[in-house]
Amino acid sequence: MAYKDEQLHEEKVFKDPVHRYVHVRDRVIWDLIATPEFQRLRRIKQLGTTYLTFHGAEHSRFNHSLGVYEIVRRIIFNFKDRKHWNEQDRLLCLCAALLHDLGHGPFSHSFEKVFKLDHEHYTQQIIVGDTKVNHVLEKVYPGFANEVADVIAKTHSNKLVVSLISSQIDADRMDYLQRDSYFTGVSYGHFDMERILRVMRPTEDQVVIKSTGMHAVEDYIMSRYQMYWQVYFHPVTRSSEVILTKIFHRVKHLYDKGYIFKLEPTHFISFFKNEENLQDYLKLDEAIVYYYFQMWQEETDEVLQDLCERFINRRLFKYVEFDPNKMMNVWLELIQLFKNIRIDPDYYLVVDSSSDLPYDFYRPGEEGERLPIHLLMPNQELRELSRESDVVEAISGKKRTDHKLYFPLDMLKENKDKETVEKIMAILQIQGDV
Amino acid sequence: MAYKDEQLHEEKVFKDPVHRYVHVRDRVIWDLIATPEFQRLRRIKQLGTTYLTFHGAEHSRFNHSLGVYEIVRRIIFNFKDRKHWNEQDRLLCLCAALLHDLGHGPFSHSFEKVFKLDHEHYTQQIIVGDTKVNHVLEKVYPGFANEVADVIAKTHSNKLVVSLISSQIDADRMDYLQRDSYFTGVSYGHFDMERILRVMRPTEDQVVIKSTGMHAVEDYIMSRYQMYWQVYFHPVTRSSEVILTKIFHRVKHLYDKGYIFKLEPTHFISFFKNEENLQDYLKLDEAIVYYYFQMWQEETDEVLQDLCERFINRRLFKYVEFDPNKMMNVWLELIQLFKNIRIDPDYYLVVDSSSDLPYDFYRPGEEGERLPIHLLMPNQELRELSRESDVVEAISGKKRTDHKLYFPLDMLKENKDKETVEKIMAILQIQGDV
Amino acid sequence: MAYKDEQLHEEKVFKDPVHRYVHVRDRVIWDLIATPEFQRLRRIKQLGTTYLTFHGAEHSRFNHSLGVYEIVRRIIFNFKDRKHWNEQDRLLCLCAALLHDLGHGPFSHSFEKVFKLDHEHYTQQIIVGDTKVNHVLEKVYPGFANEVADVIAKTHSNKLVVSLISSQIDADRMDYLQRDSYFTGVSYGHFDMERILRVMRPTEDQVVIKSTGMHAVEDYIMSRYQMYWQVYFHPVTRSSEVILTKIFHRVKHLYDKGYIFKLEPTHFISFFKNEENLQDYLKLDEAIVYYYFQMWQEETDEVLQDLCERFINRRLFKYVEFDPNKMMNVWLELIQLFKNIRIDPDYYLVVDSSSDLPYDFYRPGEEGERLPIHLLMPNQELRELSRESDVVEAISGKKRTDHKLYFPLDMLKENKDKETVEKIMAILQIQGDV
Amino acid sequence: MAYKDEQLHEEKVFKDPVHRYVHVRDRVIWDLIATPEFQRLRRIKQLGTTYLTFHGAEHSRFNHSLGVYEIVRRIIFNFKDRKHWNEQDRLLCLCAALLHDLGHGPFSHSFEKVFKLDHEHYTQQIIVGDTKVNHVLEKVYPGFANEVADVIAKTHSNKLVVSLISSQIDADRMDYLQRDSYFTGVSYGHFDMERILRVMRPTEDQVVIKSTGMHAVEDYIMSRYQMYWQVYFHPVTRSSEVILTKIFHRVKHLYDKGYIFKLEPTHFISFFKNEENLQDYLKLDEAIVYYYFQMWQEETDEVLQDLCERFINRRLFKYVEFDPNKMMNVWLELIQLFKNIRIDPDYYLVVDSSSDLPYDFYRPGEEGERLPIHLLMPNQELRELSRESDVVEAISGKKRTDHKLYFPLDMLKENKDKETVEKIMAILQIQGDV
Repeated sequence: MAYKDEQLHEEKVFKDPVHRYVHVRDRVIWDLIATPEFQRLRRIKQLGTTYLTFHGAEHSRFNHSLGVYEIVRRIIFNFKDRKHWNEQDRLLCLCAALLHDLGHGPFSHSFEKVFKLDHEHYTQQIIVGDTKVNHVLEKVYPGFANEVADVIAKTHSNKLVVSLISSQIDADRMDYLQRDSYFTGVSYGHFDMERILRVMRPTEDQVVIKSTGMHAVEDYIMSRYQMYWQVYFHPVTRSSEVILTKIFHRVKHLYDKGYIFKLEPTHFISFFKNEENLQDYLKLDEAIVYYYFQMWQEETDEVLQDLCERFINRRLFKYVEFDPNKMMNVWLELIQLFKNIRIDPDYYLVVDSSSDLPYDFYRPGEEGERLPIHLLMPNQELRELSRESDVVEAISGKKRTDHKLYFPLDMLKENKDKETVEKIMAILQIQGDV
Repeated sequence: MAYKDEQLHEEKVFKDPVHRYVHVRDRVIWDLIATPEFQRLRRIKQLGTTYLTFHGAEHSRFNHSLGVYEIVRRIIFNFKDRKHWNEQDRLLCLCAALLHDLGHGPFSHSFEKVFKLDHEHYTQQIIVGDTKVNHVLEKVYPGFANEVADVIAKTHSNKLVVSLISSQIDADRMDYLQRDSYFTGVSYGHFDMERILRVMRPTEDQVVIKSTGMHAVEDYIMSRYQMYWQVYFHPVTRSSEVILTKIFHRVKHLYDKGYIFKLEPTHFISFFKNEENLQDYLKLDEAIVYYYFQMWQEETDEVLQDLCERFINRRLFKYVEFDPNKMMNVWLELIQLFKNIRIDPDYYLVVDSSSDLPYDFYRPGEEGERLPIHLLMPNQELRELSRESDVVEAISGKKRTDHKLYFPLDMLKENKDKETVEKIMAILQIQGDV
Repeated sequence: MAYKDEQLHEEKVFKDPVHRYVHVRDRVIWDLIATPEFQRLRRIKQLGTTYLTFHGAEHSRFNHSLGVYEIVRRIIFNFKDRKHWNEQDRLLCLCAALLHDLGHGPFSHSFEKVFKLDHEHYTQQIIVGDTKVNHVLEKVYPGFANEVADVIAKTHSNKLVVSLISSQIDADRMDYLQRDSYFTGVSYGHFDMERILRVMRPTEDQVVIKSTGMHAVEDYIMSRYQMYWQVYFHPVTRSSEVILTKIFHRVKHLYDKGYIFKLEPTHFISFFKNEENLQDYLKLDEAIVYYYFQMWQEETDEVLQDLCERFINRRLFKYVEFDPNKMMNVWLELIQLFKNIRIDPDYYLVVDSSSDLPYDFYRPGEEGERLPIHLLMPNQELRELSRESDVVEAISGKKRTDHKLYFPLDMLKENKDKETVEKIMAILQIQGDV
Repeated sequence: MAYKDEQLHEEKVFKDPVHRYVHVRDRVIWDLIATPEFQRLRRIKQLGTTYLTFHGAEHSRFNHSLGVYEIVRRIIFNFKDRKHWNEQDRLLCLCAALLHDLGHGPFSHSFEKVFKLDHEHYTQQIIVGDTKVNHVLEKVYPGFANEVADVIAKTHSNKLVVSLISSQIDADRMDYLQRDSYFTGVSYGHFDMERILRVMRPTEDQVVIKSTGMHAVEDYIMSRYQMYWQVYFHPVTRSSEVILTKIFHRVKHLYDKGYIFKLEPTHFISFFKNEENLQDYLKLDEAIVYYYFQMWQEETDEVLQDLCERFINRRLFKYVEFDPNKMMNVWLELIQLFKNIRIDPDYYLVVDSSSDLPYDFYRPGEEGERLPIHLLMPNQELRELSRESDVVEAISGKKRTDHKLYFPLDMLKENKDKETVEKIMAILQIQGDV
């Protein structure tokens, strides 16, 4: 039997708290899960620093990747014998689903921002490069790895397959909403996935939703909206991301100016120089990052030491609302006041903005790559969701942005220049409870 | 207001997936949670390597510690105005609950076994030593830290308070059964805690259970039994523990014989020498351990390198049932055969035994410190649980032990001495599917 | 001890699938639950005929009434020691909560429509009339029954107490959304009630919501929206309500014109004559109604017999969308065609409209009695919810109405005048799948 | 296409709170559900009077029957392509599952006891008699109805098919444990059905369980044990059953001795005379029974009137433990004392015993028709469950019986012969809290 069609002697299952069981029958999938590159995802949290806000959110990207695979498996199972669906694409979909997040590094959000990296680029590299994952994929047939990479990159010619993995209502989103809800324990994030799976229909170039399932989709979209603002953009999490970002900035800055580290940032140097390769990248995980942060608490550089200690011991920055239209002058004044009392505003007075994503969702068509959700009406016509749904229509056009100003309240309180601190506090308190 | 009575301006809550919310009103509790020693528990998994079997089990001891605190808080809340209950003991109970696992290190089970340590000893040390936790506690009143330590050590004179934290049906067990069940996703581990809390009654020297709640307790005991054999003693988890233990053994062995490491085991040296102090211990967490394991994959020592690579990439040992009564000869023969093909049986042929705990539970009285569960009958008499419950009585006397023999199947398959390997396999396969 | 303050020897609990436990400590509450008038609610389904669409929805108003009581009990528990809250109002709130639906009769919706009755009127009557419920209440203090009645009628001078029982986010709504969701099994209807209860704050004249809980309230409002359209206004349920209404109409019509019944409609005669009294009303329950419907399957009047048989055996009417603006002519034509083939359009061609409620909700102020939901901002200011919430604002102004035309498809198919039937079908099918 | 193979144009689903969705594809199943005989099950509660103890338990046998059907559907789905499984038996299994409880009448337990009936007999009659159900079944092929009846009667030659419907771990038990747990809200009754379904294997003459699933089966058996004693044999429910039984006894007694009823017991007369036929039986449902009970509250016979009023308004009997070995004399004395104060002990002093079922379960082999549960070991051998499971073995041999003595405490308290009543109370109170 060709490797491609090889089935496990007996179906394997993973116990999964979200989907109850993850089922594996294909040898390829089993072998991919066993690769070091995939196992590495166990050492990277799905929600980065969110566990500092919601202590339950300690789950890894390994978890989520299995979940996305399982959802796609169930969708495809329902597609059997449906028009437009080609059973030959099954393995392509399953592999793309399993591997779609493979390139994530530790604390991707902050890390990528500082070092101008892109985890999607690395997902591609791991799949097509000289890796165990690539070797397993290429055993299916030569060129298969490239196909999988293309699906994930949304450049594959089979639009139906692409839409299963990346669209406004894809397996990725359906898994993370439910999974992140489960692990954080929030009451948002629930919707009737079983029903959505049952009303999904393959068409020539996308998955559409039978109109009878519209309300389940509405519920999914509201879940997504709530999860963004209640969990993903939680201001406390953003505080920890601010600190994380500043640590990376500081280390790079120190390295660039020739600072002598007690513990050299060996794992990061190629990134500082923009010379990193795939192997450098794959060596990174959260344990590595934590190790350095732990050790750097003993560096002589006070900023680095302080930021690391804050991150490790969760002594986060406080925040106030920040309105960029009204407060630019205030900000400039604060920067000067911070300088006056020798607190470096580059590291200790930070504006962070969150915006867009959930609303973007409801305005399909604006960004070229985002497919709107289409309903399949009883008369076989397709209609874009927001045309049919009052609720979705209502929140479609609304862009929402939230700006906050972060700063170390404790540090201010301990500063000896009480007078200046009082000035700062007066300015900040106008914005609300600190 | 005395620090002891100081309440937070507004109640703080943690969203908890198991208990929905964890409520904090006392300034002391809030300050304890913020200490570095307590935050360190975020970097230590509640179930060690179990996540390699149940991928959801990535939750930390931080999680669990908050949960135990919350359960005790709810028990005490119900105790208000009950005879025998002294509201003055409230803070003592809450602190002991929160801190009872404070001394756990990374992968305690294996680590303690190899280095002859005891996390309970460290819990005591952290509470009474020169730590932030100690400073917070001593602000309640001088000597309070010692009282908390005594409660956790079960040496405190107030037996009622001790029994809340450590007994056959304490807050610790009630939290971990539910929490581990939640995160692994297994269907065991459920029982009606709300009802148990409502039927708990303080007496002079212990918490007892109103007899109308007996069935909820039965359910709890069955949950415990199932969790032990289905989750805690899962043979795949034990495989990873075997490897972990052998890594620690190997490193110590190499260090002792003067091996030159590429990465010196700096964090471990004091442990090798039995000279470790509290600061050495507190520096350990799972990130540190993972960092070394990652790096040691590149050591020249093949055993160390192989074991680390196995652990990191989850290439675990396989196992067969092992009956020590019948198989000692078989084992000795296997040891010789392994030596013949140059696979060191000290590291690659390991018997692991699990036993006792759940059954011990139902035979109270044998070990001095274990209190049986007492039912409070309608006539106010106390009766030991197994006298009243058929189910508990039935499983009370049954000690159960499970032995397994672990070995690297892949390594055998790749060995060139096919003939010897076949002999080994023949011996092993008699014991069942490998 | 005054009856008013009398506590049960030991707290009683009811196991409740929605709130886990319902707790009763007050003798008054316990005695009210035991009255025949309250027990009667066990024989009236919470959702009328909805069980014909969602088979799980067989729960009674007894269920729901306990649930509302329990929620109010929890709200009040949180209010203890808060400004504006007077502990003396506790019993008033609890009794009003428990009894607020006491006047519901069997299939209220249809029954009241046909006989021009109002269950709220009967709730008042049962509380102030010569009933067991009244006797229990009056033991609290003379005039207490009237106070309870006033709270339910929203005429009581204590606006805070009234708002607990009847407002846009009262205990009634919070219970039924969750309960109906639980029993139907739909995935809508979930929200974080525990959080809402914790952010509720008493003010002088209403309960308001701390602004930090706004998102939980948004979720509640979306739940309500989805429940209305997915469950309460489900077109199949409306089909059974149409039949029910027509049965009552027919019986009255037959009685009025002197038809000789095999089984006299004894229980209904006073209602036909508008002479019913409280005792007549209290004798009604669903068992009585079902008994008559069962028996009337054997009446000689074909319409009555057919409608009863349809209801009992769930042979419901089919429906098509109906647009009153465009379809009045169509309807008139259909009426004529029905007459031509001797199917009485008064009973067999029915327009049913559902509308308003959920949207009304978000437009507070229009109807005098509806209080908007107010948020308590950090600066202690009150702000109306839709000013702060994008989502709520978005759906606030949108009135939605749904009209459907119901008819017996089977009867048409069996009619001998094939030609006319074909015409009818052609007209109907234009409106969509029948 | 033959009716037998006819599929619905589109799969139909029922929203089910326990199994999420019940799926129907076969025209036969759809048509069976629509028959009056099957719809009648909506008017008969699954747990009889249990709703008087657990208010949530208002679900009907209709509910449960759909659930059993759905479980069998899922089992069979897993059987596809397995050895020993014949896809031709699919419809036979599904119909037997759906219809297995068709013969249940209102309050079967009490009703059958008094009138010496057997619902299983009626299930057979409805399937093979002149009913709509029979007509649908016979359209599959002539004789099919008889085959379905044989499967339910366990007399069908295909033992594998029989074991799916009736065995120690059949779809019936799996549904009711979960369903009754869901609706009562108790925390017992949970087990991992999904896993059990996956480890079920067809053999020539029964369904067996792969040994890897043993612990899920243990959990199921413990669930069953807890549900029996916590829910099904709850002493309060038994109190209502006692009253129910006595009502039926009284009515028959009155009828036999020529009492003149205000409301003739028309529906019951053929049962009194042992002349009932299938049509008489099918006319019964709980609404009918309630109607009579309601009306009989106004009869002149005091016993009948009182018992009906008790049942309707839930004024139940109280109880004390009763040990038949020690208390026969006590009982005889009580009977005399009751007579002395003119309370008829035939109706007001009742011993009720519950026993056996759950334990029976664990002693397979004793009753000819009960198949033990067999595990399929890795070596393909079959082993009886209690040989492998400590827990099951432990509770296997233990028969448990519970006797209680029921009586109307209120009636005693109101009796004027205080002295005798005091004697009675003294005797009863020795047995425990009344």
